[in-house]
Amino acid sequence: MTGFVYLVGSGPGDPDLMTVKARRLLDEADVVLHDKLPGPEILGTIDEERREDVGKRAGGEWTPQEYTNRRLVELAEAGKTVVRLKGGDPFVFGRGGEEAEHLAAHDIPFEYVPGVTSAIAGPGVAGIPVTHRDHASSVSFVTGHEDPTKAESAVDWEALAATGGTLVVLMGVGKLPDYTAALREAGMDPATPVALVERATWPDMQVATGTLDTIVDVRDEAGIEPPAITVIGDVAGTRDRVVEFLRTRT
Amino acid sequence: MTGFVYLVGSGPGDPDLMTVKARRLLDEADVVLHDKLPGPEILGTIDEERREDVGKRAGGEWTPQEYTNRRLVELAEAGKTVVRLKGGDPFVFGRGGEEAEHLAAHDIPFEYVPGVTSAIAGPGVAGIPVTHRDHASSVSFVTGHEDPTKAESAVDWEALAATGGTLVVLMGVGKLPDYTAALREAGMDPATPVALVERATWPDMQVATGTLDTIVDVRDEAGIEPPAITVIGDVAGTRDRVVEFLRTRT
Repeated sequence: MTGFVYLVGSGPGDPDLMTVKARRLLDEADVVLHDKLPGPEILGTIDEERREDVGKRAGGEWTPQEYTNRRLVELAEAGKTVVRLKGGDPFVFGRGGEEAEHLAAHDIPFEYVPGVTSAIAGPGVAGIPVTHRDHASSVSFVTGHEDPTKAESAVDWEALAATGGTLVVLMGVGKLPDYTAALREAGMDPATPVALVERATWPDMQVATGTLDTIVDVRDEAGIEPPAITVIGDVAGTRDRVVEFLRTRT
Repeated sequence: MTGFVYLVGSGPGDPDLMTVKARRLLDEADVVLHDKLPGPEILGTIDEERREDVGKRAGGEWTPQEYTNRRLVELAEAGKTVVRLKGGDPFVFGRGGEEAEHLAAHDIPFEYVPGVTSAIAGPGVAGIPVTHRDHASSVSFVTGHEDPTKAESAVDWEALAATGGTLVVLMGVGKLPDYTAALREAGMDPATPVALVERATWPDMQVATGTLDTIVDVRDEAGIEPPAITVIGDVAGTRDRVVEFLRTRT
């Protein structure tokens, strides 16, 4: 009897922002494969003996991704019900698509269980809607943490600037100077509002705001560190108009 | 005593894909203001006497949005704990940003409770990851249902095509011929895979696939109707590789 794999999004980190289904699957699965991204509050709700950290493996025979793929198949073939728990949503910069293809190629039935993505919730809990009728008709998500095997950046910052919509950069703290410079060169107004949201929805969340021109200094002064979301666009200015009445985790 | 407003995302429609927090707030709120977008399964879980449908109002003294804004303030000023329930996520094409600003302008404390967006979950449950290391380094969300007060389209389809990333169009069934033509004119390959996902995660979900060139005919033959999500990009080709082993709502 072949088992079953659930590719499950854990949301941005607050356990209350997991889906009802994710919560139930975490309580019922035989094994939960995870890395550090779901965060300590969520990982802390799973029994130690049913958890396997597949994020730390490096320097072995397989890359962490190859190891995870192999372990998913191995457990499913042993008849287990497996949760592959991923931060945010499994199909947003999470390599869930590759895992799904690997499972299908090995005849393992699976289900995708979406999660709340920090790309939307991160700005949101800071009082920033990623779209707004008056400010942004589109929103684009990119990663600031490029695939290191690619010779040059696959992200076309000039085209993204030309959309006129909100830009949200995931894992983009380190390369902030690079892509803010690229966006200025592409003609984006240096006064465009920018916000950084570190550890969105976690108890120690931090928010810092500036403009395309000032945000690198703001990052350094505020000590913003990964994991964090960068929001670029007029919507980032909304925070100032709502923050006095905005509550979190009530 | 002023009350409190929760701007809550209901997710794509499957009640199991609500967050734990949304589920609890729906059970505990004094009043739930909603329109039709959360879908019948979720609305059916809320007691009739605590529900108010604010989506139907038209032709009165206020537009539906003005009425909703006014009613939120009225109820909060009467000391109520109010849930403003919105399909998907409140800050993705949901006018939640405007509601947040209206509340803050009237000194009403509020919280944003993110939801799973159908822009990601819709493609996902059809076996399509919106990003993929091999196919898409970015994903952009736009609405096919433009603000009618705008003189011309605020969406720059040429810039969106130039990003090279996945495009997801929400509420884009009716205008499918217009924006697929715009994307072809912008130089996008007519063979680019396109998928339509109607009523994503609902029991009567439908999926139809084609290319930029064929998708309008596919839509007509399959009888795809709103609400539906359009996914444009190489990632849409992933479905064929996984669909045999992909399960939904197990």
